[in-house]
Amino acid sequence: MINNMKLDGDLIMSGERIRLSKFERIVVVGGGKAAAAMAEAMESLLDGRISAGLVNVPDKFRGRSTGKIGYHRATHPLPSQEGVAGVTKMLDIIGKPSEDTLVICLISGGGSALMPLPREGVTLSDKVGVTKLLLNAGATIRELNTVRKHLSGIKGGWLARKLYPCASVAIVISDVVGDALDSIASGPLYPDRSTFRDALAVLRKYGVQNKIPTNVARVLRKGLAHELPETPKEGDRCFRRVRHVVVGSNADACGAAVRKLETLRRRPLYLTCHLSGEAQHAGAVLGSIARDGLGRVSSRQSFLSLVAGGETTVRVVGSGRGGRNQEAALGASISLEDADDIALGFIGTDGLDGPTDAAGAIVDGSTLKRARSKGLDADEYLARNDAYNFFRETGDLVITGPTGTNVSDISVAARSRVIIR
Amino acid sequence: MINNMKLDGDLIMSGERIRLSKFERIVVVGGGKAAAAMAEAMESLLDGRISAGLVNVPDKFRGRSTGKIGYHRATHPLPSQEGVAGVTKMLDIIGKPSEDTLVICLISGGGSALMPLPREGVTLSDKVGVTKLLLNAGATIRELNTVRKHLSGIKGGWLARKLYPCASVAIVISDVVGDALDSIASGPLYPDRSTFRDALAVLRKYGVQNKIPTNVARVLRKGLAHELPETPKEGDRCFRRVRHVVVGSNADACGAAVRKLETLRRRPLYLTCHLSGEAQHAGAVLGSIARDGLGRVSSRQSFLSLVAGGETTVRVVGSGRGGRNQEAALGASISLEDADDIALGFIGTDGLDGPTDAAGAIVDGSTLKRARSKGLDADEYLARNDAYNFFRETGDLVITGPTGTNVSDISVAARSRVIIR
Repeated sequence: MINNMKLDGDLIMSGERIRLSKFERIVVVGGGKAAAAMAEAMESLLDGRISAGLVNVPDKFRGRSTGKIGYHRATHPLPSQEGVAGVTKMLDIIGKPSEDTLVICLISGGGSALMPLPREGVTLSDKVGVTKLLLNAGATIRELNTVRKHLSGIKGGWLARKLYPCASVAIVISDVVGDALDSIASGPLYPDRSTFRDALAVLRKYGVQNKIPTNVARVLRKGLAHELPETPKEGDRCFRRVRHVVVGSNADACGAAVRKLETLRRRPLYLTCHLSGEAQHAGAVLGSIARDGLGRVSSRQSFLSLVAGGETTVRVVGSGRGGRNQEAALGASISLEDADDIALGFIGTDGLDGPTDAAGAIVDGSTLKRARSKGLDADEYLARNDAYNFFRETGDLVITGPTGTNVSDISVAARSRVIIR
Repeated sequence: MINNMKLDGDLIMSGERIRLSKFERIVVVGGGKAAAAMAEAMESLLDGRISAGLVNVPDKFRGRSTGKIGYHRATHPLPSQEGVAGVTKMLDIIGKPSEDTLVICLISGGGSALMPLPREGVTLSDKVGVTKLLLNAGATIRELNTVRKHLSGIKGGWLARKLYPCASVAIVISDVVGDALDSIASGPLYPDRSTFRDALAVLRKYGVQNKIPTNVARVLRKGLAHELPETPKEGDRCFRRVRHVVVGSNADACGAAVRKLETLRRRPLYLTCHLSGEAQHAGAVLGSIARDGLGRVSSRQSFLSLVAGGETTVRVVGSGRGGRNQEAALGASISLEDADDIALGFIGTDGLDGPTDAAGAIVDGSTLKRARSKGLDADEYLARNDAYNFFRETGDLVITGPTGTNVSDISVAARSRVIIR
């Protein structure tokens, strides 16, 4: 959790020293799926120096704050007024921005929904409306963020503008492949590269420019006419006193899995932390690699397990239940058919894969056989995006409950027998 | 070419001995993209013992036969009367089946189209018609074969029935992931597992059962009513005197690539010979693995190159030009963005990727940058399946011309600099 940070009188982050003694107040704010665990870690790291704080946590989270940083329950994946109330309270706690205040902002996956604050002239339901339109039309998360940043009071660098001249530190657990700081929680403290023009281009691309709420249309029209300011860009003075540190990422999770597998003497091969693409196809490729690439004992190639991380996507065409990890596992099960000694799991590190109660699934060479004996056809379940019900029947679901963190997804394959050639 | 076979007085195949002296005649027939090279290798291996022979070669092939086995030009990917004439001539050369005749059948990729022989009551244009219907509807190659085997005079084991009681040896270069002998060239000498009922189910699945040619409908109706015999099944006596040997496969090509890279001191990691799935997504996954998995110099993981083989598919939605290898390379170029020291090639081993003059493409970390400087957007080219025109502009196409063999596709990634951590 606090990789890359330590307290040594001052706060040391990625080699940079932040003099805590310079500040009269240290305020901790933020939100995301990992907010509570991050808050706890900060309390412990900063050891009594925090003046006040509040983080927005998912409403499903059941823990209670025991320190200075309060928990405010908000909603995910759709934002709500509870989230807005939390963010408003955070800004109240920070008060009038001053050079004597250090704001520590805890950012993790889900932060876009958990920390909403519509810009003036736009309501939360306007934002939800345009978000739903774009999601249903198949927009990517980057395209969605381009639009949302231009409708927000804090996303796309606007929080940095609101906090200036406070010093601020964004502490980030990344759920974004490649850890792009302008994408995680829509980059509240990071310079934005997109424009009102880009936002309009996204709406046009998906043919929804005439279906958006009136308020949204008005804000975009004003923005294009330069009657509203653009999101803060690189070089803006509001970023001068902002630092970012990524304390957890998919690469860290993959590294931890590799170390664990080494301890277990499972000779791991690390493949990537940039897994992407359509889930079922990415799953099929990993299944093929697990099938062929493991267990070849030679001087150079003698792996008994694989580790890969990242975040795939699902183009939803059916009306079934599932998530990207379950869909990837179903794709992999087809590649693994009859490879009896290989098992391959796909797990969302937040413990929540899609709108299901499962974190993912673990398949092996017997999955398809077991499914057939129950009359289940993997291709049919894939075609209607119904991996959850497939695996509920085969008993291959992994159910962990929310884990309190979120560094995208991780996949581990292992061979149960050693084959010597 | 003649892996797994040698002549030692008798013919030794995969450890089994075939007494050539028992036979009065040895006839070589067959067809496919590798037919000419296989014929040449057989002439050389059997050293003057061949009585007669004919193979169907692609009409683009320019070589001339110099031995006993003649070349007959036929067409691919769509079959034609030239192909039918060649097969008819082969059956003439074999003559009345006799225990004293050994028929060596050379089978390679493309054989389904290059060796056509419609069953009685069906014309070639009937078969082409139903094939086009199914391809446009998105049927898989396995589904296509299920239908074609029930409309053919030689596919799906029917050639074995025609040849019995000759002894026969199918020598196979596999272009099918997993080397399924009932799939390569639609398995002319291999027991079929599919039925008339399955064939009808395929037509219904794609909603074309009422659009098929009248002759096809009549044959299927008769088959379902048991008025026509089923394709020969496992246990049929016609297979008793048939042997199969796979002399070349994607795994062999991957193995050769691995050995070559070892010679070049590029420390190869072999991933799989079962690559499958949608080309652009499989390409993206390999790109991510190349990006992250190479060049980590540690005791266990110190690879400078990757090898993967198989055959991906492309769901055509646009009207552009390309092939599965070019499409995979375009998907990979996005994963490789800014990974300056990684190059990754996707090549069809037959030298012909889709309906283009390219074998595939080699991309690297600079491909997207170079494309952008010419105003090309990779996502747009992917969306219209136009990888060929993208790479023609960037200069990343690989053009080899037909190679005279076909063992699906191969992909090699290499790191140009060694990074020591």
